[in-house]
Amino acid sequence: MFEARLGNTLLLKRIVDALREILSQSTLDCSDTGIQLQAMDDSHVSLVALTLKTECFEKYRCTRNVSLGLDLKSLAKVLKCASSDDSVTIKADDKADKVLFCFESEGKERTADYELRLLNLDQDHLGIPDTDYSCVVHMPSIEFARICRDMSMFSESVTIACTKNSIKFSANGDMGVANIKLSETSKGDVIINVDEPLSLSFAGRYLNTFTKATPLAEKVKIALAAEVPLLVEYPIEDYGYIRYYLAPKVDEADV
Amino acid sequence: MFEARLGNTLLLKRIVDALREILSQSTLDCSDTGIQLQAMDDSHVSLVALTLKTECFEKYRCTRNVSLGLDLKSLAKVLKCASSDDSVTIKADDKADKVLFCFESEGKERTADYELRLLNLDQDHLGIPDTDYSCVVHMPSIEFARICRDMSMFSESVTIACTKNSIKFSANGDMGVANIKLSETSKGDVIINVDEPLSLSFAGRYLNTFTKATPLAEKVKIALAAEVPLLVEYPIEDYGYIRYYLAPKVDEADV
Amino acid sequence: MFEARLGNTLLLKRIVDALREILSQSTLDCSDTGIQLQAMDDSHVSLVALTLKTECFEKYRCTRNVSLGLDLKSLAKVLKCASSDDSVTIKADDKADKVLFCFESEGKERTADYELRLLNLDQDHLGIPDTDYSCVVHMPSIEFARICRDMSMFSESVTIACTKNSIKFSANGDMGVANIKLSETSKGDVIINVDEPLSLSFAGRYLNTFTKATPLAEKVKIALAAEVPLLVEYPIEDYGYIRYYLAPKVDEADV
Repeated sequence: MFEARLGNTLLLKRIVDALREILSQSTLDCSDTGIQLQAMDDSHVSLVALTLKTECFEKYRCTRNVSLGLDLKSLAKVLKCASSDDSVTIKADDKADKVLFCFESEGKERTADYELRLLNLDQDHLGIPDTDYSCVVHMPSIEFARICRDMSMFSESVTIACTKNSIKFSANGDMGVANIKLSETSKGDVIINVDEPLSLSFAGRYLNTFTKATPLAEKVKIALAAEVPLLVEYPIEDYGYIRYYLAPKVDEADV
Repeated sequence: MFEARLGNTLLLKRIVDALREILSQSTLDCSDTGIQLQAMDDSHVSLVALTLKTECFEKYRCTRNVSLGLDLKSLAKVLKCASSDDSVTIKADDKADKVLFCFESEGKERTADYELRLLNLDQDHLGIPDTDYSCVVHMPSIEFARICRDMSMFSESVTIACTKNSIKFSANGDMGVANIKLSETSKGDVIINVDEPLSLSFAGRYLNTFTKATPLAEKVKIALAAEVPLLVEYPIEDYGYIRYYLAPKVDEADV
Repeated sequence: MFEARLGNTLLLKRIVDALREILSQSTLDCSDTGIQLQAMDDSHVSLVALTLKTECFEKYRCTRNVSLGLDLKSLAKVLKCASSDDSVTIKADDKADKVLFCFESEGKERTADYELRLLNLDQDHLGIPDTDYSCVVHMPSIEFARICRDMSMFSESVTIACTKNSIKFSANGDMGVANIKLSETSKGDVIINVDEPLSLSFAGRYLNTFTKATPLAEKVKIALAAEVPLLVEYPIEDYGYIRYYLAPKVDEADV
């Protein structure tokens, strides 16, 4: 039996908005330590991992591990029906074929229940090896989203180059060449840790889908190392994170 | 000869926006008691009735009954050209084939005249019998609009169930089941008067078109009785109303 | 060698938004007196002329005349990537085949460079004869934009009639007739100078494209004379202007 209650719906809205850009259906694994999700995107290129600890919830009870196979488009519709400040309780029986989302307004004068059918989805649990990244950059998540959007106007491919003091995004296409360079700021909103300078190229459209998680966090962490997937991490307060992984392009890697 | 002047255009904009969602063309019946309109929607399922008393107008003169057959899409275009705080004067001669809308800015430095051709429309005056409704609910019009929109994501059919203390809207479709329940609030913004509990089903898309009248009134009145059409009424200040009528679905009526 | 620096990007954004509505590609002529552009619109009906004096720039150096053939859609994309308060420096070598746009945030912690390929465009320098206009009207540019938009809902053709104290815009179409009349105001935001009353008709869709320059200036100047093109002028502070010219319609000219 699984029951979890969030004090407001906004967080769940933002998580689902971030996921559904990259996944049409997925399975939430609920256990006594919290909720997890791990999946390849629909085109099997990038990987997304979500972790929500039990501390994230006002109330959390999970007597037995439950896997909730959800259609994220349907879930997004349900969440669109809720006010951001409604509380939301998620309930599922053991071996249930449906999950219940209950929304309550503050005075409880308005209650809304939505029962969604559960899906039986294949799950491929991929081990994500721990990696020592040679470049780790923290920057405002809005700035990262803007750069990814701007770059994608120029080329399908975005090159990220890190040096000691700066991170540079480049795109080279028919229209011309674009370069955006960020330096560490005195304000401390851009932090760059580079053991070894490197330059890697990525498919811009995946970077763009990752940035749908922007409302979840003010800062985004970008971590790179040669020949391993890029990590883009959005923390969810102190309670978890959404991480995206994307392998660099082999042919177009700049040096 | 007919001449009527409104102190601002906003009210007329809102009325036309409410009507044109359900009617493409219609006839305004102008008499010395005010303006009336009554019509089946374009698909001949629901019925709409508008009443505007002469008190609604800064100036009102109607020496002879006039019927103004209007294309509501054209009228909406004309109204889009006016500022909401312009005054508007509607003028038509007896047996005219056109109607004039004159807009004036406050200082009268800007005047705009629009002459629209009148249409010859068939009119079916339907008697609407007075009904004793067993359930009458007043609720915020925005809340009703939101519920109708939310329900229509789940199913074409919406069930409204009234009990002594609550009104419940339900929809049951492929995606799952949705239930929204409102109780009488201490704030008094939801008032429920039920002589006899009942449950009736309606076509959600008509309910949705009715809610285009939402900007006209803060509160909407919903009245139901077994086997008679639902009444949804938006008051227009103290000067009139827009009423919508929709028969319940026979097959799917819950009990 | 050409280099010009604007303290913020907003002005350039507005200029390019105004031009690209009417031109897909065009040549900026840079000389030691400033930047000029003159071109027929893509359909060769109206004419647009831009003048920006060197005073407009924080820094301006032009050692040799340079013609920059630009794809305005690409330039608009580049400008969309810049914040309105970024500074922008435009750089081109003599006989260059590319132009560089460099954007800097205030603290210079963020720099973005965009290199656009230059186009080889045919240029037709058209002499615009000085004209004594018999009617000159200054009015709020937003009001002019609104009138042009409203008129185009009624007819493709807009008639502008000036008398001593008023300017009237009219359109006559299938839907009906529209007339908007402005008088000189005590506030002085509409100023009408008429030597000789006249009435001329114009293609409304060109007037509408001219109004894309509205954000550049609070006031627009409209100048008419019999049998010569209408002039619509948007001043750019004290540093220049965008002027549009459109010949009156011959057949439909009212009297």
